[in-house]
Amino acid sequence: MINLFLYNWMVRDEWFELCKQIPNDELTCNRSGGVGGIQKTLFHIVDVENSWIRGIQGKPDIQVQYDKYKSIRQVKDLSDSWRTEIRLFFETWNNEFEHEVVTVSWTNGSYTKGEILRHVIAHEIHHMGQLSVWVRDIGFQPVSANVIGRGPRNFFPSISPRGGLHL
Amino acid sequence: MINLFLYNWMVRDEWFELCKQIPNDELTCNRSGGVGGIQKTLFHIVDVENSWIRGIQGKPDIQVQYDKYKSIRQVKDLSDSWRTEIRLFFETWNNEFEHEVVTVSWTNGSYTKGEILRHVIAHEIHHMGQLSVWVRDIGFQPVSANVIGRGPRNFFPSISPRGGLHL
Repeated sequence: MINLFLYNWMVRDEWFELCKQIPNDELTCNRSGGVGGIQKTLFHIVDVENSWIRGIQGKPDIQVQYDKYKSIRQVKDLSDSWRTEIRLFFETWNNEFEHEVVTVSWTNGSYTKGEILRHVIAHEIHHMGQLSVWVRDIGFQPVSANVIGRGPRNFFPSISPRGGLHL
Repeated sequence: MINLFLYNWMVRDEWFELCKQIPNDELTCNRSGGVGGIQKTLFHIVDVENSWIRGIQGKPDIQVQYDKYKSIRQVKDLSDSWRTEIRLFFETWNNEFEHEVVTVSWTNGSYTKGEILRHVIAHEIHHMGQLSVWVRDIGFQPVSANVIGRGPRNFFPSISPRGGLHL
């Protein structure tokens, strides 16, 4: 399952790269669907991923405000800055965590850690589908969503028998 | 990982249900992005899933033509009809399959079974993101893509220690 996070990060970085070619007003204008825009969507997936992964670990949420992020470069910097900590968490993951229940500060209910990981994975892929429609509308070729065909198979690090990630 | 297929099936069925409220010409008209339309997208994800899951098992591909499927009901019937066989395959899944390599008839290259499962999962979620933009454009509330909050936690069947699915 951790492989799908690494896939998401690879796809996200390709979107950041594509965004360099897209005029700033197209990145920031309001659009129908999702959270309402290209740059805002990228900010949102970075924010949501970090919140849930911290939530799983019992760490307090870090509040970030979209209006402080004026460029796609700043959103990418935020994405990059949080990966080290998330990666360290993935190194500790093992299948026993799957059914452990956690609660988080920003929503009612309790969820298993496995359910949360799946939620974060699906959340990003779903939003990338929205980006693909929006950029096609303005004449750009979207980033491929393919999992297969992303270079050497060993892009995906091997998973230990306990399910932890060897990075 | 199999849980994400069950999530996809649940979300897909909710899309089929929503489509009952959407006029037929809106379901079948050409749209920008993805495979170009709502009904066509649902057909496409059903077709792609079945092809890859058969491919993993070394079974020949079943060719289906979109122009034979005139209504959303027929696409749902196709989706339902293939699930029994796919579910039986999931029952046999264990983590040793992860790195087994297969080739398929419709594309070059060889892929691991784990890579293919992840590809099929991401493929459907990505296309559902596209649907969400299109239906918002025509005034409908899209199906939620949330993994969490989909009713009782035991919706997701337990996974055996070998990784196989208890259905």
